[in-house]
Amino acid sequence: MTTRVPVVEKILSANDRMAARNRETLDRAGLYAINIMASPGAGKTSLILKTLESLNGRLRLGVVEGDLASSIDADRAAAAGLPAVQINTGGDCHLDAAMLADALIALPLAELDLVLVENVGNLICPANFQIGTHLNVLIASIPEGDDKPYKYPGMYRGVQALIVNKIDLLPHVPFDLEYFKRGVEVLNPGVITFLLSCKTGEGVNAWAEWLVRQVKDKKE
Amino acid sequence: MTTRVPVVEKILSANDRMAARNRETLDRAGLYAINIMASPGAGKTSLILKTLESLNGRLRLGVVEGDLASSIDADRAAAAGLPAVQINTGGDCHLDAAMLADALIALPLAELDLVLVENVGNLICPANFQIGTHLNVLIASIPEGDDKPYKYPGMYRGVQALIVNKIDLLPHVPFDLEYFKRGVEVLNPGVITFLLSCKTGEGVNAWAEWLVRQVKDKKE
Repeated sequence: MTTRVPVVEKILSANDRMAARNRETLDRAGLYAINIMASPGAGKTSLILKTLESLNGRLRLGVVEGDLASSIDADRAAAAGLPAVQINTGGDCHLDAAMLADALIALPLAELDLVLVENVGNLICPANFQIGTHLNVLIASIPEGDDKPYKYPGMYRGVQALIVNKIDLLPHVPFDLEYFKRGVEVLNPGVITFLLSCKTGEGVNAWAEWLVRQVKDKKE
Repeated sequence: MTTRVPVVEKILSANDRMAARNRETLDRAGLYAINIMASPGAGKTSLILKTLESLNGRLRLGVVEGDLASSIDADRAAAAGLPAVQINTGGDCHLDAAMLADALIALPLAELDLVLVENVGNLICPANFQIGTHLNVLIASIPEGDDKPYKYPGMYRGVQALIVNKIDLLPHVPFDLEYFKRGVEVLNPGVITFLLSCKTGEGVNAWAEWLVRQVKDKKE
């Protein structure tokens, strides 16, 4: 007599299934993609433009911009010469995998090495939706204050790289870097962190070099 | 023979019904309440503390703090001597009327004139939920950038007062005030706007005076 052993499978949500398909699309095209998340105005588009400058042609970039409304960010990226797609979510507070799937169709994937996806400005909702990229990146911003890891743990927990932007403002706003780092360390021990300023360019090269290595490691 | 005329009624959502009950609770207690919304780190708690300072005892304040996690903000308000309640939403990206109802029970309403509700840091979700307060206030922040009205129209459209905080950073970040104002004017023509700095205190008194008038007008 045999006993039936119940097998519990994780049933993927429609979004997770679509995210897996996006990953396949990207991998088939030999592409690396990152999902950039941050509060409104932390410097997502500025980071993309400074990264482009710092890479100086070493990687071929494509950009997907997510916003409730407007094409301001995609216009900025296109003005810098990047293939760019704007997603307007209407009211939605995050990108989902189906939106990215539509955007990928509109990009010349065969001509790219790296797709930079700029999520909707929000420290909460985007953390809950995988979209199929290889890396989740969070941009924190000095004027936001040093208590954000404590207040938005889900976002800080779910990323593989952390950028702290606007370090040029450190002399002008109260920000305790040690307090901030302690909060991050509890949630995401050892997460790689880059302190930089998209305004002055300080620290951008180190981030761009690291990104080049991620893309190359994947190709090998 | 009579024809039946179909009557279409707006059916209130559970949240709207609860918001109406909160309003009744507040009105019965002779209280004025405001719902303060903003991006993470725009200065919601700082505004509450500077308002307290500027009012200098002219109104009796109570505070409700909304965050995903932590009691950092309520601790700051309590340290300043304010009756304060912290709501932790878990993952929710906004306060709803039921959460405020619970918080109001925990405040000594009979001893207050004004309840300041600090919503979760987010420029999207809180705009879609009435919670029963008398006034919606948005805090914009100079380092967030001047394009936020264009990107977050729902939030800018739904408020009765707009505060632009951190004006002390104007010399240090790019921010075109005219471009910002044009975006606001399209969405919310004539909305009363206060430019101020919670760091230096500049402009805080004008906001506090206006708030006193709102509370007095309501009592009369």
